[in-house]
Order: sequence, then C-alpha cells, then structure tokens
Amino acid sequence: MHGNEAAASRSVAVAGPHTMTEVNTYTRRRLTDAPFLAAATGATPSRRPVWFMRQAGRSLPEYRELRKGIGMLESCFDPELVCEITMQPIRRHGVDAAILFSDIVVPLKAAGIDLDIVPGVGPVIASPVRTAADVRALPRLRPEEVGAVTDGIELLVDALGDTPLIGFAGAPFTLASYLVEGGPSKNHERTKAMMHADPTTWHELLGVLTDITVAFLQAQLAAGVDALQLFDSWAGALSLADYRTFVLPHSERVFAQIATAGVPRIHFGVGTGDLLGAMGEAGADVVGVDWRVPLTEAVRRVGPGKALQGNLDPAVLFAGSAAIESEARRIAGEADEAITMGAAGHIFNLGHGVLPDTDPGVLTALVELVHEL
Amino acid sequence: MHGNEAAASRSVAVAGPHTMTEVNTYTRRRLTDAPFLAAATGATPSRRPVWFMRQAGRSLPEYRELRKGIGMLESCFDPELVCEITMQPIRRHGVDAAILFSDIVVPLKAAGIDLDIVPGVGPVIASPVRTAADVRALPRLRPEEVGAVTDGIELLVDALGDTPLIGFAGAPFTLASYLVEGGPSKNHERTKAMMHADPTTWHELLGVLTDITVAFLQAQLAAGVDALQLFDSWAGALSLADYRTFVLPHSERVFAQIATAGVPRIHFGVGTGDLLGAMGEAGADVVGVDWRVPLTEAVRRVGPGKALQGNLDPAVLFAGSAAIESEARRIAGEADEAITMGAAGHIFNLGHGVLPDTDPGVLTALVELVHEL
Repeated sequence: MHGNEAAASRSVAVAGPHTMTEVNTYTRRRLTDAPFLAAATGATPSRRPVWFMRQAGRSLPEYRELRKGIGMLESCFDPELVCEITMQPIRRHGVDAAILFSDIVVPLKAAGIDLDIVPGVGPVIASPVRTAADVRALPRLRPEEVGAVTDGIELLVDALGDTPLIGFAGAPFTLASYLVEGGPSKNHERTKAMMHADPTTWHELLGVLTDITVAFLQAQLAAGVDALQLFDSWAGALSLADYRTFVLPHSERVFAQIATAGVPRIHFGVGTGDLLGAMGEAGADVVGVDWRVPLTEAVRRVGPGKALQGNLDPAVLFAGSAAIESEARRIAGEADEAITMGAAGHIFNLGHGVLPDTDPGVLTALVELVHEL
Repeated sequence: MHGNEAAASRSVAVAGPHTMTEVNTYTRRRLTDAPFLAAATGATPSRRPVWFMRQAGRSLPEYRELRKGIGMLESCFDPELVCEITMQPIRRHGVDAAILFSDIVVPLKAAGIDLDIVPGVGPVIASPVRTAADVRALPRLRPEEVGAVTDGIELLVDALGDTPLIGFAGAPFTLASYLVEGGPSKNHERTKAMMHADPTTWHELLGVLTDITVAFLQAQLAAGVDALQLFDSWAGALSLADYRTFVLPHSERVFAQIATAGVPRIHFGVGTGDLLGAMGEAGADVVGVDWRVPLTEAVRRVGPGKALQGNLDPAVLFAGSAAIESEARRIAGEADEAITMGAAGHIFNLGHGVLPDTDPGVLTALVELVHEL
C-alpha cells in the first residue's frame, strides 16, 4: 500500500542528512502520474490539473462545523484536524492536489513569537518588531517546534494516496510586514519605513525570517510533501525596484535552500503583475498569476521554462455557470498558447484564494469542467 | 482683483449653454503661468509643480480640529467648510494646486441615494443596487442638487488667487462598486458578478453613473474649477480585458462630455499598472501613476502626448528625510527622462493619497524640495 511504503520511507528520512532527498525521490516516483506534478515539471499531464488556493477552509460547511469552538492556531497545531481539514476539499471536489491546512504565521508562533489569529482581523503580534534590538531578540525555528504540523503531513501522506500534497510557507517579506506592522496592514508604512530608513536592520530581519521559512519548509519536505508554495501575499505592495533590493535576495535564498529536495516550488503573490519576472527569478519552478495578467502575457514576463498557475478571478465564481465556463475556457486557451510560447505547463487555479461566500458546488463543477478542457 | 473678475465671469456662466467654455477660457488665461496647468498642458512650467492626493484632510491637525463633531457628508455640503478645508494645505504646504474637499459619493448623495459615510468604514449604501429594477429606479443628478459644492468652489476661486483648483469625481466603475456591494469591498464579487452575469444591466448602471458623473463635473466646471481629476479608485481590481469591456466605454464618455471645457483632465487609479494605456485612451490629458510603475515605464504604456502625475510611495514619507529626498530625486529624474520619451509634462504627487498618520511637516519639506529639483 502506498501509504505504508511512504511511511516507511519517511521513517528513514529522519535518520540522516541525505534521506530527505530519498523520501522525495520516492515520493515523486510514487506520484509520477499525478497530473499536478506532471504539469509542474514540464511533463505532459493526463488531464489539466486544478486545485484552488484556500480550497481547505472557510467556503466549506464541513470545515465551519469542524472548527466550531476551536481557534485558528489551535487547529493548525492539531495533526488530526490538519489532516481532516486538508482532506475535505479532496473528497468533495476531486481536485488534483491537496494544500496543507496551515497559516503563514504558524512557523512564527511555533518559534515562540507571541501572536494570535483574531477572527475578523487576522494575525495580531503582541510585540511588533521595529528596532535592531527587536530583530536580534527574534528566535529561530527548531524543526521539533513544528512537530504537530509534520505529524499532520505524515497522516496526510497516508490518507491522500495518489493525490500530491503541497506544503507552504509565507515568504520573508510578508512575514516581516506582519511582524513590523503588528498585524495586517493596508499600506505597510512601518515596514517600508524600516526598509528605506534602516536597510541594515531590514536585511537582518529578512535574514532571520528566511532562516525560519527554510526550516519550516525543510521540516515539511522531510515529512513528505510533494511540492511547496511560497506565498508572498503582500509583495504586490512594492515597486519592482524595492522588490529587487529589499526582498528578492531573501526569497531567492529560500528557494535555493530547498532546491536539493527536488520537488516543484511554486511562488505566488497577488497584484504582482510588474513583479512576475523577478518572482520567477527568485527560483520558482511554477509562478502563480493573479487574474489581472493574462497567462499569454505572464509567460512573456516570467520567461520560458517555468510552469504557470492560475488565474480565474475568484469573484467570477459568483457570476453563474455560463460566465464561469466562458472564463475557464478563455484561461485554458490562453494557457495552451502560453505553453506554445515556452511555459513548461499549466496548473489551473484561481487568481487568489477562494472567497468565503463561494458556493462549494460551483467549485466542484469547475473541477469537472477543467478536467474536460 | 482676480477673484472678483472670476466671480463676474462665473455669473455669466449660468446664463447660457456656451458660457461654461467662456469661464474656462478665462480661467486658463488668468492662471496661464501656474506651473501645475503648464505641466498638465505640455507647456514648460516655471518650477516642477507638486500637490498631494488627500492633501486636504486627515493628516492636518487644523482639519481634525475643524471637523470635530461634524460628519464627513455634512462637511462636504457646507460651502464654507469645503472652502476652508481645501485652503488649509495651500496655506500650510504651498502646493501648486488645490483639490476640492469632497468625497466620491457626494454626487450620489446629492442625487438622492440614501447613503452615509461611516467613520472607520467608509460609504454605506442603505439599499444596494443589484437588479435591473434597482438600476431603473436610480435618480439622475440635477446641477442645483450640488449647489453647496459649487458654492464652495465659487468661494475657493476667490480665495485661491493664482493657485489652480482641481475638481474631481469618482469614475463610474468605482461608484458602481459602492452601490452594488453596499459599501467598500475588498474583492468586488457582487460587482464583478453583475458585470459577467448580466452585462445589459451592468452597462445600464454604468450609463446612469456616467450621467451623474458628467453632471457633477459640468457643475464644477461652471463654478470655475481649473482642472478635473477622475478617480477610478478600484479599477486596479480588474483585468485589462474586463476593464476594456465593462468600464472603458463609460469613462471615455465622461472625458468626452467634459472635453469642450478645455481644462486639463486627470485620470487616476491605484494598482493600475496593466491598465495605464487603457486609462490614457479613456481621454485623460494627464495620467496618474502609482508608485509600482516607474514613470519611464509609465510613458511607454500611456504613449506620448499625455502628462504624467506621481508617483512617490506615500509610505516613504515615514522613512525620514534622507530616504524621502533620495526617492523624490529618483522620481524627478525618471520624470525628466519620461518627458524626453514623449510625456507632455510631469506633476509631482504621491502614488496614492496622503496616509492619515503622515507628519504634515514632512509634506511641507517635500514641497520645498520638489520646487528645487
């Protein structure tokens, strides 16, 4: 049985420094026919793969039922819940990949930073990070601190069978924005002020966050994820010049330090039309594209040899089946053209996360449609 | 005295259909040396003009003092307050243009739509517009319904002397988003759903909002404004294809119907990197650029013959004088290069509105710096 073999392979993985690669070589062999992994690696998938950012979560009644009375962070550190919530959209929609149920602040919390996720607000940091001393006082992440997450991944590898599992983390810039602002921010003014006023402290902060991100992703790889997505949720707030100077070197290090695992690495941010080329340069194998840029234009910006992921406007899911079908067909057509222009493949997705009020039945129907395209 | 002459000219303006042009011909003659108008119209300004979006408002202590106990909409419909609040940043910063203190929902309120501006929330619409019947029930705007605004403009033309006054309105798409969503929206899902699911109703709605916008802008022109800015605050949420199909024809009609006035027309939205060319096509003389796209790139997208406005990241104003100076010099340099590439001129501004916590002293110093560049 695949699950048991994977579990056996994982038990080897903790024994030595080279076993992580072995696990993943194994994992990839196991899932060699998975359309998602084929499209991500330049092979020809047996059907057009599709998954949805935020497919695990708010839009599903079974999720809301399961989360009743349980806080967001509590859920993220409960292996059984992580597994069950991650599995829900696989069972319901038949998507081609699972995305680990987690949150981008999970590694920060695990490392010992005092924060909470407040419903209706988002992450709230008890002591925002604003000085060189604050940065020096930041903890690092030891792999055992995310043991609950990796336990959840091990349960998932068993439960998922042939469906690949995407691990993920927030990119250093986005984590920095939460830490510096103290929570979600519309304008990121304190973050950008630190960048421009004190670049030395800024780069130290991003260095620490890169270490934490790499440690978190390596732990996920060791536990058996088949792909990784690095979310730079707020990168779209930056000019290309600021992105290149203050962010790119750190995201680049994240991708470089997980490269040996050999699993597909996806990079995504929203409102990043002018950053797509640089985000590809950071080292991703797959670049996620929001709905603002057609895939035929995205491939020009990203350059050849990388797969593209996206890019249906999540708001279109509220426009009825005719509009959804028309937009999905347009995107599939543009994706096919992008591939003739050099893109390594296409993974159908939304251009941003599933909105909370989305009708789950609409998502299920969209999966069926994409598989026919 | 200039003010009295302008007032005399305005009193003619209400007498017949052709007098609006007369007023504005007069106004432009009066302000022929104003750096802002020179830069906007392809002439050579005596110094680099600068003003700030949201310069009138939240960042100024004298504004917060004046607004104590007075609601936002109440302020917008009080001619004396409109004049005083608009004047405050002129006196304090010495900027090269005044921007009418108003709000984009003012013409909707004036036309009789039940709405309020709730502190900390934004505009809240009592009965959102979601059906064809809702659209058919929408009122039009009669000029006398914005008499308080035009009275404020008449006071301002007297008070401002040689400083040009920029009138403004929200663009039809942004107004539609407020009406359909019922208030500010992050994802505009109901708006986009109407667009895609019922394009006939959508275009009817945008047609009504175009009529209201044109009526509001024509009233401002008749009262004596020297330039107009059309804010499409939320246009950046759209793909270029959706913008072209569902928005551009209406914004184009707005610009066409105010063209005979002969005053510079500015168009701005945030996060509109991929829309800049189309927003220029809509008919603006000046295209506002947010901080994400360098002016040298903006001129390529907009094409030659239009002036550019922008584009300092408002968050940089929190980074200290050295960073601000460095960024302002970079922008001035890129603007000069953009002019050699075909841009008709450059008006220095932020890439978005002044943030509420901005130190007003920093803005004053920036005006002095820009005037030296």
